[in-house]
Amino acid sequence: MESPFTGVIPPVVTPLDDAGNFDRASFDRVVNRMIDAGVHGLFFLGSSGEVVFSTDERRREIIAAAVETVAGRVPVLVGCIDTETNRVIEHARTAAELGADAIVATAPFYALGGVNEIERHFRKIHEAVDLPLFAYDIPVCVHVKLPGALLLKLGLDGVLAGVKDSSGDDVSFRFLARDNAAAGRPLTLLTGHEVVVDGAYMSGSDGCVPGLGNVDPAAYVRQWDAYRAGDWNTVRAEQDHLTELMRIVLVTTGAVGFGAGVGAFKTALMLLGVFSTNRMPEPVAALTGENLTAIAEVLRSCGLEPTIDPESAEIAPFAS
Amino acid sequence: MESPFTGVIPPVVTPLDDAGNFDRASFDRVVNRMIDAGVHGLFFLGSSGEVVFSTDERRREIIAAAVETVAGRVPVLVGCIDTETNRVIEHARTAAELGADAIVATAPFYALGGVNEIERHFRKIHEAVDLPLFAYDIPVCVHVKLPGALLLKLGLDGVLAGVKDSSGDDVSFRFLARDNAAAGRPLTLLTGHEVVVDGAYMSGSDGCVPGLGNVDPAAYVRQWDAYRAGDWNTVRAEQDHLTELMRIVLVTTGAVGFGAGVGAFKTALMLLGVFSTNRMPEPVAALTGENLTAIAEVLRSCGLEPTIDPESAEIAPFAS
Amino acid sequence: MESPFTGVIPPVVTPLDDAGNFDRASFDRVVNRMIDAGVHGLFFLGSSGEVVFSTDERRREIIAAAVETVAGRVPVLVGCIDTETNRVIEHARTAAELGADAIVATAPFYALGGVNEIERHFRKIHEAVDLPLFAYDIPVCVHVKLPGALLLKLGLDGVLAGVKDSSGDDVSFRFLARDNAAAGRPLTLLTGHEVVVDGAYMSGSDGCVPGLGNVDPAAYVRQWDAYRAGDWNTVRAEQDHLTELMRIVLVTTGAVGFGAGVGAFKTALMLLGVFSTNRMPEPVAALTGENLTAIAEVLRSCGLEPTIDPESAEIAPFAS
Amino acid sequence: MESPFTGVIPPVVTPLDDAGNFDRASFDRVVNRMIDAGVHGLFFLGSSGEVVFSTDERRREIIAAAVETVAGRVPVLVGCIDTETNRVIEHARTAAELGADAIVATAPFYALGGVNEIERHFRKIHEAVDLPLFAYDIPVCVHVKLPGALLLKLGLDGVLAGVKDSSGDDVSFRFLARDNAAAGRPLTLLTGHEVVVDGAYMSGSDGCVPGLGNVDPAAYVRQWDAYRAGDWNTVRAEQDHLTELMRIVLVTTGAVGFGAGVGAFKTALMLLGVFSTNRMPEPVAALTGENLTAIAEVLRSCGLEPTIDPESAEIAPFAS
Repeated sequence: MESPFTGVIPPVVTPLDDAGNFDRASFDRVVNRMIDAGVHGLFFLGSSGEVVFSTDERRREIIAAAVETVAGRVPVLVGCIDTETNRVIEHARTAAELGADAIVATAPFYALGGVNEIERHFRKIHEAVDLPLFAYDIPVCVHVKLPGALLLKLGLDGVLAGVKDSSGDDVSFRFLARDNAAAGRPLTLLTGHEVVVDGAYMSGSDGCVPGLGNVDPAAYVRQWDAYRAGDWNTVRAEQDHLTELMRIVLVTTGAVGFGAGVGAFKTALMLLGVFSTNRMPEPVAALTGENLTAIAEVLRSCGLEPTIDPESAEIAPFAS
Repeated sequence: MESPFTGVIPPVVTPLDDAGNFDRASFDRVVNRMIDAGVHGLFFLGSSGEVVFSTDERRREIIAAAVETVAGRVPVLVGCIDTETNRVIEHARTAAELGADAIVATAPFYALGGVNEIERHFRKIHEAVDLPLFAYDIPVCVHVKLPGALLLKLGLDGVLAGVKDSSGDDVSFRFLARDNAAAGRPLTLLTGHEVVVDGAYMSGSDGCVPGLGNVDPAAYVRQWDAYRAGDWNTVRAEQDHLTELMRIVLVTTGAVGFGAGVGAFKTALMLLGVFSTNRMPEPVAALTGENLTAIAEVLRSCGLEPTIDPESAEIAPFAS
Repeated sequence: MESPFTGVIPPVVTPLDDAGNFDRASFDRVVNRMIDAGVHGLFFLGSSGEVVFSTDERRREIIAAAVETVAGRVPVLVGCIDTETNRVIEHARTAAELGADAIVATAPFYALGGVNEIERHFRKIHEAVDLPLFAYDIPVCVHVKLPGALLLKLGLDGVLAGVKDSSGDDVSFRFLARDNAAAGRPLTLLTGHEVVVDGAYMSGSDGCVPGLGNVDPAAYVRQWDAYRAGDWNTVRAEQDHLTELMRIVLVTTGAVGFGAGVGAFKTALMLLGVFSTNRMPEPVAALTGENLTAIAEVLRSCGLEPTIDPESAEIAPFAS
Repeated sequence: MESPFTGVIPPVVTPLDDAGNFDRASFDRVVNRMIDAGVHGLFFLGSSGEVVFSTDERRREIIAAAVETVAGRVPVLVGCIDTETNRVIEHARTAAELGADAIVATAPFYALGGVNEIERHFRKIHEAVDLPLFAYDIPVCVHVKLPGALLLKLGLDGVLAGVKDSSGDDVSFRFLARDNAAAGRPLTLLTGHEVVVDGAYMSGSDGCVPGLGNVDPAAYVRQWDAYRAGDWNTVRAEQDHLTELMRIVLVTTGAVGFGAGVGAFKTALMLLGVFSTNRMPEPVAALTGENLTAIAEVLRSCGLEPTIDPESAEIAPFAS
C-alpha cells in the first residue's frame, strides 16, 4: 500500500496582513493555487510557515483555516515544532483535534541532549497522538543531525511514518533511501531541497517539500510527473528552471536567513498577486525597495509575470 | 543607585515528583535553603530551571510558587525563553502579571536571523512589558553570541537592565565590563560561570548565576562577601572548593548535556535531602545506579554529607 | 575547446609498505588498473592521497613516480596543499618541475583569514606557476567554504582552470554550475562526491574525483559514459552499485575520519590484491581484525571478489 | 624542582622588511626589548609568529636568529607546527639541531582524526626528539580541543612537559590546573590569554604566552611579579591596563583574524619604533591609513607614546 504522503508537498508560507494578523484571504489564494496546480499534499506550520514565530493562538488559527480551506482535497501535514517533548505533544494534540492528517516534529532543541533523548522524544509523541508522525531533520535550526539508523529503527517500530529531510546532507539521504528500500520502505522519504530535487529523486526520494513550491507549484508537479514516467531529461530541465527561480532569494541584499528566504517567497507571492502584502512576523523586517525590483526581474526572466508593479508597492518594513 | 540585581542569584533547579509533576515541597525547600544561605536573588525558569521543557501551564505554576515562596525576601527573576518575539512577550506578560521583579530573555532561536532581528527582539519585549529586562547570552543553546556593542547600546537606551553571560567567552565579557564601566554602568553584568567566578570578579562582574549555587549556596555567598571585601585569597579558595564540587557533573557516565548537568544537580539535592527525587523532564532520563554513588562521593569529599544512602535510592529512569 | 580535465579523475590513494615507506609496486598497480579501466585523469596528493601526512621528500617521490608511471596516458593533477601561500608555491614549483599537468590548491588554513586572503592566495599561486590551477573546495578540512562568486571571478580572470568540489554543499554547486554555464564555462567543475555523483551530473558537473574510484574505477567510467550518452537510468544504477560499495567505510568500527575512510580504501585494495598492505601514515592505525572481514563481505556482495583471505591477513596497526 | 618554563613567555611576532624578507634588525630589537623588560622565556614560530606562513628555509632562519640573539638569557621555545606527525618531527629535529630549549606542537590538523591519533602524534614526536615538548591547545586553528585527561596522562608519562592553552575554554583549564596540581604538577600550564590572564592566575596558571607581550612586556612582568607576591589588586590593575591596550586589535577595520590581530601588533611595534615596517606575510595585507591612526591613539591613551607619526607612515598593503 502506497503512502498517502508522496509527491509534491509544499510547506505553506503564512501570509500576514499589514497589521501583522493572519491574512485568511491570501492564505486561501496560495492554498487553492497550489492544489489547483496539482500538488499532492500541503505542510502547514513548517519552518518557512513561521511556526516558531507563531503563538499557540496563531497556530490554532492557521491549522483550523488549513483544514477548512483544503477540505480534504489533499492531505494536511502540520508542523508541531517546539523545544521539548511535552510542549510538542500539546501542539500535536491541537493538530489532531483540529483535523490534521499527519504531524511533523523536529528533534528537541535549545537544551542540550543526545541520541537517547531524541529517540524517546519521538516515541513519546507517537504514544500521545494517533496520527502519522514525520521526523523533520533540520540541523541548521536544531543543531543536530538525525542519525539514519535511528530513523530507520523508528520507522520499523511504527513510530515514524516518514522523514522530511532538510539536512542538506545528500550522502546520508542516499544511504537512508537505500536502507529504507532494503527494509521494505517503512518510511516515506521527502526531501526539503528546492534546487537539487532531481538529485534527491536519483537517490530515491518519495517526494519533495519545497518552499519555492509556493511560488511555482506547477513546475514541481511537472517534475514529479516526469520522474514517475522515467523522463529524466524533463526532471532535470524543470530543476534548472526552478533553480533559476530560486534566485529570488539570492538577489536580495540586507536581509539574512529567514528574512531573506521566506521574505523573498512572500515578496514573490505579493508581486504575483497571491499575497496582499509581504509582511513578516516580528522581529523580522519585510523586504522593501530595490529588493522588490530585483525579485520581480527574476520572476519575469523565469516566465512568471508580476501583476504588481514593484516600484509602486509601498512597503513599511514593520507593521505599524 | 545600585542595581537590585547584584550578588549571588542562582538559577533555581525545578524539582519534579515521581510522576513528573511539579514538586512544591521540594521547591520550597531548595528556595528557602538558598535564601537562608544569603543569596541575593533567585532566577526561575532558566535553562537549568528546565524552562524549555515546561508547558505554559507548568511555567505559570512555577512562577506563582516562586513569588509566593520567596515572598519578597529577594528579587525574583523569571526566564521568558522561547523561540521568537511574540511568544516571548506572552511569557513576559504572564511573569509580570504573576509578580516577577525582572525578566530574562535570550536571542531568538531556531529560525535563522541576524543582529537586526536580535536588536528589535529585545526592543519589542521591553516595549511590551514594563519590567527590568536581562539579556541572556547563551550561544550553546541559541547558537549566536550577543555582540557586546549591541548589549551596551541597548543598556544605554534603557532597553536592557543587564546581561546574564553564559557565553563562556571571557574575553568578550572583560571588554563588555570595561565598556560598561566607562559608560556609567547602564548594565548589571552577571556571569553564568560556575567554576571561574573568581575570574569573572577580576573582570568586574556584578554577580553570578551559578547552577551549582543550588547545591552549595553558602560558598558562593562567602565568595561574594570576600570579593566585596577585597579578600582575593578567599575568593580563590572558595572557587577551588566549588570547582571540586562541580565534579558531580564530571563523574557521571552515560548522560550528556542537560541530563548530566542538571541531572547531577538534582541528584545532589536528593542525596542532601532537599529534593524528594531526581526525576527529570521528558525525554531526559534520571541518573541512576553508580552515578548516585559517584556523586555522593564528590559531595562527601567536599564536606557536604549526604543524608540519603545512594545505594538504597531506587530510581527508575522515567516517570511511570 | 573542451577542457582536458573532464570525466573520471580519481584521487589516487598512496600505498605504503610495512615499514611505512612509499610502495612503488603497489602504486604502479593501482595507477595502471585505473588507467586500464578507462579513467580520464588521475589526481595525486589529494586529501585521500595523504598529502598532509607527506614530507616534502615523500611528496617529491610520489609526483616523480606518478609522472613516470602514467607516462602521458592521462593528465596528472597534483595536490599542492599546505597552510599558506608561499609554502603552496614551493610545492607547486616542485610539481611543475617534475612534470605535472595541473595543480590543485585549497584555501589557506590554520591561520584565520577572510575572503580577501583567499582571493590573493590563488592569484599569487597562479602568478608563480604556469600550470592550470584547480581550487579545491573542502571546508571539512580547511573550515571555510569557497564562495561561488569568487570562484567564477577567478575563472573569468584566467586564474582558475577549475574547481574540485568536496564541499558537500550541493545547492551551491548547482548555482555555480548554472553561473559557470552562463559565463561560457571558464571553469571545469569536478565533484568530489562518491555516492551522489548522479545528482552532480544532473547539476552539470564536468566530471568526478571519487576516492572510491580507486576500488572500482570501471563503474565510475561506465557511469560517465552513460551520462554522456544521456542514459540516466544507467547513471543511477551505477550510482546505486557504488553507494553499496561505499559501505566499506561504514562497516568499520573503532576508526574515525581519515583512518576509517582512506583506511577502508587501502584495505579493500589490499583484499583485492592491488596493495601489498593497508599500512597507514603516522599517527593513524591501519584497520585490522573484524574490520577486514566486514570490508571483504561488502566487496563480495558488490561483485568484487577478494583475492586475499581477510582472516589470514596479519596486520599490525603500526609500522614496526 | 621548578620548571624553567614559567612566567611571562611572549610568542615573538616575526618582523618582515618591505620586500617580505625576515628583518633581523627589527627582530633583535623586539627580542632584546622583551628580555630587558624581564620576560622569562620567548616562544618563536607560534601562531602569531607566523609559523604556518613560513617556508622551511624561513623557519630555519628565524630559529637560528632566535638562538643567537637570545644567547641563553632566557629559554627559547620553538613552534613545530605542521599538519601531521612526520612533518612536525622534521621541524622538531631542525629546532633541536639549531639549539632550541623546548618545542611546541599542536594536534594534527587538516586530515580528520580522533583522540587516538592525537595521543600517538605527541608520543611519536617525543620519541623522535629529546627536548621538552609542550602541547599547544588551539582549537580555533586546528578545530579540536585537547582533552584534559589526555594532557594529564601524557604529562604523567613524561611525554609532555607542559601545555600552552589557547583554547579559550577557561572552565576546562581550571579543571586541568586542579588535576595537574593533585597529580604533583607533571605539566607546566601556560595560558595564551591576553586579557584575562588574571583569571588564569586565579586558576593556577604557571605563566602566560601573550602576543600583546610584544607590545608591553613590562606590564605582563609586573603582573607576574604581583601574582607571585599575592598582590591581587595589582594583578587586576595591570590586567585592566593590558585589556585597554588590547584594543589596538579591536579598533581596526577591514581586516579579519590574523590580519587584524598580528597586523595590529606589528603596527604598534612599528609606531613604537621597534619594527621598521608592519609588513605581513602573503596573502595578508598590512594595516594602512586610518588603522594606523586608531592604533596610535590606543597606544597613547595607554601611556605608550608612538615615536612614528601614523600620518606620515606610507604603507603599501603588499610587498612590491
